[in-house]
Amino acid sequence: MNSVANNYMKIISSIVEMHKTSLDLRNKGKNIGFVPTMGALHKGHTSLIERAKKDNTAVILSIFVNPTQFTPGEDYRSYPRDIEKDKAIASDIGVDYLFLPSADEMYPEGFKTFVNVEDITEPLCGKFRPGHFKGVATVVLKLFNIVIPHRAYFGEKDYQQLLVIKRIVKDLNLDIEIVNMATIREDDGLAMSSRNRYLNQKERLSAAAIYRAMEIFQEMIKNNEKIPQKIVNEMERIIKNEDGIKIDYISICNPDTLKDLKVINGSVLAAIAVRIGKTRLIDNCVVEEK
Amino acid sequence: MNSVANNYMKIISSIVEMHKTSLDLRNKGKNIGFVPTMGALHKGHTSLIERAKKDNTAVILSIFVNPTQFTPGEDYRSYPRDIEKDKAIASDIGVDYLFLPSADEMYPEGFKTFVNVEDITEPLCGKFRPGHFKGVATVVLKLFNIVIPHRAYFGEKDYQQLLVIKRIVKDLNLDIEIVNMATIREDDGLAMSSRNRYLNQKERLSAAAIYRAMEIFQEMIKNNEKIPQKIVNEMERIIKNEDGIKIDYISICNPDTLKDLKVINGSVLAAIAVRIGKTRLIDNCVVEEK
Repeated sequence: MNSVANNYMKIISSIVEMHKTSLDLRNKGKNIGFVPTMGALHKGHTSLIERAKKDNTAVILSIFVNPTQFTPGEDYRSYPRDIEKDKAIASDIGVDYLFLPSADEMYPEGFKTFVNVEDITEPLCGKFRPGHFKGVATVVLKLFNIVIPHRAYFGEKDYQQLLVIKRIVKDLNLDIEIVNMATIREDDGLAMSSRNRYLNQKERLSAAAIYRAMEIFQEMIKNNEKIPQKIVNEMERIIKNEDGIKIDYISICNPDTLKDLKVINGSVLAAIAVRIGKTRLIDNCVVEEK
Repeated sequence: MNSVANNYMKIISSIVEMHKTSLDLRNKGKNIGFVPTMGALHKGHTSLIERAKKDNTAVILSIFVNPTQFTPGEDYRSYPRDIEKDKAIASDIGVDYLFLPSADEMYPEGFKTFVNVEDITEPLCGKFRPGHFKGVATVVLKLFNIVIPHRAYFGEKDYQQLLVIKRIVKDLNLDIEIVNMATIREDDGLAMSSRNRYLNQKERLSAAAIYRAMEIFQEMIKNNEKIPQKIVNEMERIIKNEDGIKIDYISICNPDTLKDLKVINGSVLAAIAVRIGKTRLIDNCVVEEK
């Protein structure tokens, strides 16, 4: 591991300068590891950066709160932004380049091009956040074209997003290796998320029920439960036991197609999205076929 | 010009091999000029190749009849294919690499990602060929990612396609220069097109009316006509004078937005699509603001 402090982190906001910098790095034979984020960095992000440092000779971190992946009425304006703290974290951990593009330069007047992954963007969060994955797919492709990384790093917490990005890379013939890293959790199991900052003390306690539901899922699979609805019922019971949590969905599905399973037979994904007050939180767990 | 015969043209059908070859060319400091086509090469294509040879140190020509840009009921299966003749033309003119991917490798099972340019894909051919530009945008982006060219060459005959491709390059931050070249015409003005091969003798004679309609457009603009409908009426009169031509559309519109003009004031595009028998032909003409 090579997470020593780096006093030379360069901050770049211009798209042209970022691209030119990346071309120069490639011409010098550097391997570029890229960690795209929306900032409000937490240990989930830093685990990606640490891994990118291990795998590559140059690490680029982007922070961009992407307007096109928020649906109307969502938290685009209020999304946690703490750029000074993020800069300190990135610099301390040894990021080489911090890319901070503006929304105006990313989406200039006349912008009309979107990337859409069909099918796997429809269930789960796609159902509750129409257009979200189109925004994610588009911004990730733009960032890839600007940064031209050899490898890019994504957390498994956003499971459906990870599937979408892997699909884009394959379908559009991008020469980028997608590396996914395990969800980092708080002591009580809550998945790290920038949105956890929204939670008040009472909500934060309730939020731990999400992970307890995941534990029940794992336990029931281990005990050879084959009927998804029985598992969903148990997960629901745990969540509903807490005050003020509203379930968007709990799905027991195929980890590749995201289609609901009728019977469990092989690898299985449990995916959940809830609302606690105004905060929407997601989590997931894959149990691989033995 | 450097269109001497080239006995060293390399034919590549594997996507991985094409990409590796392009990476090698870039590493050697070569500039890659790319001409994507659907084959049945004619003088329109060769003008693009000649220009690519002038501008670059390596020229890649692709021939791929792209299934996703044909709408149901169109001529995907019957589209002119003459690969042996195309190879000879490409080799004679000095193409360095001929890329011939298969549809199975371009669109493997599970393919789900599409690129869509909004707005400018809706009028003109977009209205008559739903999904066509989504197919074009997707395949062009795939080919760009495989071939990683410095410059790519497109004919102005497919005006709306050219606009879509320029939009993709800008919106998705692709580091590729798009070079457009004037439509090449037969002696009687008919725009060169692979689909002209479909025309029988009688149809071929009728087809010349398309260019005569373009000439009327230019003449009326020159004579300061400001009312689009009057120009459309004259163009229609010329087309309808011929037996067996059916008009899909005649549009007098803004060359950037493709929106129909109510009054002519500045640059103007005339775009036309007709059907002669089973053959669909298009043409266009831009008169720039003086």
